[in-house]
Parts: sequence; C-alpha cells; structure tokens
Amino acid sequence: MPPAQRRDALRSLLRADGLDALLVTDLVNVRYLTGFTGSNAALVVGADGPDADVFATDGRYRTQAADEVPDVRTVVDRASASALVGDTGVGGAIGFESDHVTVDQHSGLEELARESGRPILLRRAPGLVGRLRMVKDDDEVAALRAACELADAALSALLADGGIAVGRTERDVALDLEDRMRRLGAHGPAFETILAAGPNSAIPHHRPTGAQLRRGDLVKLDFGALVGGYHSDMTRTFVLGPPVEWQRELHELVAGSQRAGCDALRPGTDVTVVDAASRDVVVAAGRGEEFLHGLGHGVGLEIHEPPWLSARGTGEIAAGQVVTVEPGVYLEGLGGVRIEDTLVVHDDGAEPLTAAPRELVEL
Amino acid sequence: MPPAQRRDALRSLLRADGLDALLVTDLVNVRYLTGFTGSNAALVVGADGPDADVFATDGRYRTQAADEVPDVRTVVDRASASALVGDTGVGGAIGFESDHVTVDQHSGLEELARESGRPILLRRAPGLVGRLRMVKDDDEVAALRAACELADAALSALLADGGIAVGRTERDVALDLEDRMRRLGAHGPAFETILAAGPNSAIPHHRPTGAQLRRGDLVKLDFGALVGGYHSDMTRTFVLGPPVEWQRELHELVAGSQRAGCDALRPGTDVTVVDAASRDVVVAAGRGEEFLHGLGHGVGLEIHEPPWLSARGTGEIAAGQVVTVEPGVYLEGLGGVRIEDTLVVHDDGAEPLTAAPRELVEL
Repeated sequence: MPPAQRRDALRSLLRADGLDALLVTDLVNVRYLTGFTGSNAALVVGADGPDADVFATDGRYRTQAADEVPDVRTVVDRASASALVGDTGVGGAIGFESDHVTVDQHSGLEELARESGRPILLRRAPGLVGRLRMVKDDDEVAALRAACELADAALSALLADGGIAVGRTERDVALDLEDRMRRLGAHGPAFETILAAGPNSAIPHHRPTGAQLRRGDLVKLDFGALVGGYHSDMTRTFVLGPPVEWQRELHELVAGSQRAGCDALRPGTDVTVVDAASRDVVVAAGRGEEFLHGLGHGVGLEIHEPPWLSARGTGEIAAGQVVTVEPGVYLEGLGGVRIEDTLVVHDDGAEPLTAAPRELVEL
Repeated sequence: MPPAQRRDALRSLLRADGLDALLVTDLVNVRYLTGFTGSNAALVVGADGPDADVFATDGRYRTQAADEVPDVRTVVDRASASALVGDTGVGGAIGFESDHVTVDQHSGLEELARESGRPILLRRAPGLVGRLRMVKDDDEVAALRAACELADAALSALLADGGIAVGRTERDVALDLEDRMRRLGAHGPAFETILAAGPNSAIPHHRPTGAQLRRGDLVKLDFGALVGGYHSDMTRTFVLGPPVEWQRELHELVAGSQRAGCDALRPGTDVTVVDAASRDVVVAAGRGEEFLHGLGHGVGLEIHEPPWLSARGTGEIAAGQVVTVEPGVYLEGLGGVRIEDTLVVHDDGAEPLTAAPRELVEL
C-alpha cells in the first residue's frame, strides 16, 4: 500500500477522534506514513485531506527527502517537530503521540502553540498509527516473508556447512550467521543475535560470549534478518550430539506448547487466550514458573510491536497481524529451550513465515 | 570508575537540586550507573546514600542482573519503572528524566505516586546523569581509545588490501569494513556505515547502495566501532585516481577547517566558538551555505550525546570531554568532503583518538 493510502486511512481515525490533525514524531510511524528512512523527521497529517500534510527534516536529508517523500510538502529545519507546529497553519485540535513525546518536548510544543497566535489545542493521541500498523498490508506481508525466508536460508547454509559445532565459540557462530544474512542481502540482523550454549541456554536473553560449544550442549539460537525495514524473528534449540533424557523431554514440552500457541492463533481470539493455550501445556508439566516471559509479540517495522501476546496483553487477534509464538522453559544452571516462529494470521488460522525444522535437531 | 562511585557523584547533584531521589529510566543512564546491559531496567538513586538505591528489571535478566549489578538491591518486575515508584519506600521529591519519560509514562507514574499513599512529589530532572556522562573518567577514555584504535586498524587493513577500489559497490565496501571491525573484536559498527562515492558523497548521510565506485570519484567514509558499549566516530574522504582541481581544493578547504576546529577545542571555550573557528574557514571561502550541519558532538555510551558543537549549542568545553570535529562541504550533484576525528580534551588542548591520515589519499 503506498504511503499516501496509509495517510488516508489515518485521516479516518483522526476524524473519528475529533482531531483536526496529528503530529507524528515517532520515526517509525513517520517511515510507515511517508517512506522516509532518515534519522530526523516529523510529519503533520491533516484530518480533512492531503493539502494540510507537511513533512519536516533537516539539511542532511534534503536530497533523500525529495527522493523518498516526493508527495508531501516538505520543510527543511533541524527542529523538525517544532517547525511543524510553527508552520502547519493548522489550528484546532492537534493530536500528538503522547506515548512517544517526552514531558520536556511536550512543554516545548505547548509553548510554540501559544506563541503561534493560532488557536491550537494539543491533545494526547497515543497509538493511532500503531493501530494501523498492527494489521499488515500485502506489501508488508511480502516484506516480512522475504525477511523470514532470508533468515531461514542463512540458517540452512550455516547448518549445511557445519557452522554450529563443538569447539566454536558462541560469538563465532553468531557472527558467522549474521555475515551470511548480510551476504544474502539483509540490511543486518533484526536484533542482537542470541546464541547460548549449555547452561547459558537457560538465560533467556544471553549475549554470545567467547565460551566454546561442547558436546552434549543445548544450543539456543534466536535471530532474525532486517530486510527493507522489516524484521524476522525465529528461535531454534539444537543439541550437540545425542540428547540426554531431560533435554529430549524439555524440547518436546516446549515444542508441544509452541504448537498449541500457533493453533490458537485465530482471528477473534483474545491475546490472553493464545498465551494461555501455550502456557497451560507448560504449567500442566509443572514448569510454569520456568516459562519466564510472554508468549510473543507483533513484528514489522519494529522487532517488538503490538499486539502483545501475554497474560497481561489486551485485544483480539486479527487477520493480517504478524506475530511471534515463542514459549521457552529455562532450567537455571542446566539449560533451556525456546522455539519461536513468526506467523501471519489468515481468516482460517496462522501460517508460519519461518520454516526451519521444529523438532530437536542433533548436530 | 566503578558504577558505585558514579552513583555517589549523582547524589551530590541530587542534593544540590533539593531532590530526595532520582528515578532513572533512560537505559543508557542505567547502564552508566550500574553496568547493566540488558534491554529493560530502571533505577532509583537516593540522595542520602546507597541504602535507598533500588534496581529493577524483568525475569529474562534475573541472572544477568545478579552478575552485572551485584551491589544494588534488585526487584524483578516487568514494569520496572512503575515497580520502583511503588516499591522504593522513598517519599518526598523524586526527580524523573523529563527529557526521556513520555507524557503517558509520566501520567502513569503520577497515578502510582498518588496510590502509594506516601507523600511523593515527582519533579522534572532532565539531564542530570547526562551532566556526569559529559566528562569521561579514565576507564571511559580508555574504552573510547580502544574503540577508535580498532576502527583505525580496520580501515588500515581495508586500504592495505585494496578494499576501496573501482568496480566494488558502496555496499560491498561498507560490509567489508564492518566485517573487519567485528573480526577485530568490535561488538558491531557504532552506527550505520556511510560509504558514498561520486555525486553521492555530496549527501551528508548517504546510505550505501549497489552503485559501483568509479575512477575519479570522491569516496566519503564515515564509520565507527562499538567496543564495550563505547563508540568511535571517524570520517575520511578519499579519491579514486588522481584528484582534479576542485576535488583537491575542496579537500584542502575542509582539512583547514577541521584543523581550526581541533585547535579551538580547549577547556573553557564556548561550544559556539569552536563551531565558529571551523565554520569561519569555510565561510571565508564562500562555501558557508554548503556546510550543512553542526561541527560535532559528544561520543560515549551513545554515538551522539552532549555536548553539541554547533552555532546553537550551549556550554563550555571541559577537560575529559570526548567529542567529534567534523566539518563537511557538499556540492550537490558533484561531490562532498567531510573529515572527522574523535578527540579527547586535555587541560592543554585536544588529542585525536582517531589517527588515519587526514590529507587527501589517492587510491
């Protein structure tokens, strides 16, 4: 969907909320609504139509803005958001992203509004663009699919070349995988790769160290590719050599939990119900206390974005959402297993975009 | 300096501002004050002494927190900042980072303060930790020096291997350099590497493309290494083959401007004076309009942090600051030159931590 259509979709939300315009300062939202990929920008979207839309960035991005945002009036000013409040000409109720604007920035905007001489009422408007972003359009699903496929291809090649092997360090394996993703065309890893072997696999967010992989280790690998601004997210847990009984059992438990979560992922289901579907399998096995985090999260222009699939999340699953399902059970000092896919929700259920085998692979 | 000493230094600032405690939610500040490197945490620092200090993170980081923050009482709760306001037991004037806390987060904290039943007054306290971070201690200067040396070594190796050459793409060269930094031990690039050839070099923040380097191109390379949480930042502009007259002149102009900026970098000098020292050289040559950005910025746990060396910056240079000096002149459609070093300020002047040759190198 071209950015202009997204801005039009946003106008409907603005009118429904009685806003005359929205000041967009979250750069990810600015990118979603304009295509701009630089590091300083802001945007005003008018409720009544594109004539009131204004985009602002600084001099470093003059050329890039002309290229990426040809269809919105552009102001070049380092203080992009402030310039817009001074410059829009819009009066009335202007929403701001109160979940992103800081207390100090807000004071500055209030002052500018007063000084403008126009009747401007700044109103909190959190999560409006986020509501649109939660449901991915076809272009976005295609981009997410491409990111997931690239990550899968990099993992396949790593495994085919014996890249996860006794004697290599956690850091070497993580770098090797990241290199492969880049060489396949990724902009970079979607987030800091987690490669955790042996007892380290019991640390949910372990950072790769110089520790060598050893025979008998569980090896947990959580990684993704960033392609065209979109992220993929996948976790697999391997074993170096034949698994012992507790490793096999733990992996089976988590795999069952993960299937249950994926099966529950259907339009209209409350996010807490999806979380519970997966978590109940772990709780029934007496391991509920060792499932240390929520079940999953939305994935898109950000690696972590709404909806939140957890016991404390709110809202229902909808077709077009792209989310992770990633239960994990962590036995401190011993080892842990997490299995994660990125899935797109269709009317009749969820389709995994990540494809590597989910059974316990012996390396 | 161990984190405990930094917290003690902060206490003096709190007492001077009449605060009973500071709620630290900016993760970089939390890292500075505790050593914690995870992605969710908050910290309360009491004005009167370490007994009131409390650290909070979520279950994913239980092990890591015990390891990295052994000396602060720790609460494990996903809503880390909120948990602290509920849990500190501190009453009175609690500062919050109003330059980081969002409008919505602030409302939530106000509500928690009311519900606590304790007399809590939340007060704006922007930039307190930033004031400490602006002057680097010996450990930090050593870390920044290591990051700069690693980046220099990677660039030397790239040049020695003929890595910047006609026919390679911008993207290939950037990836090659980033790979070399990782293999030398960097955590990753300090920011997205800028490799811009030919007319692209006139775009200050160009993102590397599939375009091939051609004979006669100016090649602008702006990059850095991330090592132990600290960043380096350096720009050099090369030429592929013998330079033509305008290229040589442009490079000489910028090199002269950069020397003037570095020479002006002394304790007690206003940041605007440093900016002007460098900018005046460019203005005198009639190119002031083509110097599209400020002169430089602080570097540390963030790639861009105070002080800001620009015409609109405020404050004086102090010994122990680590900043960049990076004038650039950009001739749209033709090419641009930027030369940048990261320097540490001593009592008697500034020492460059980045060392690659600053003259126009012909490749």
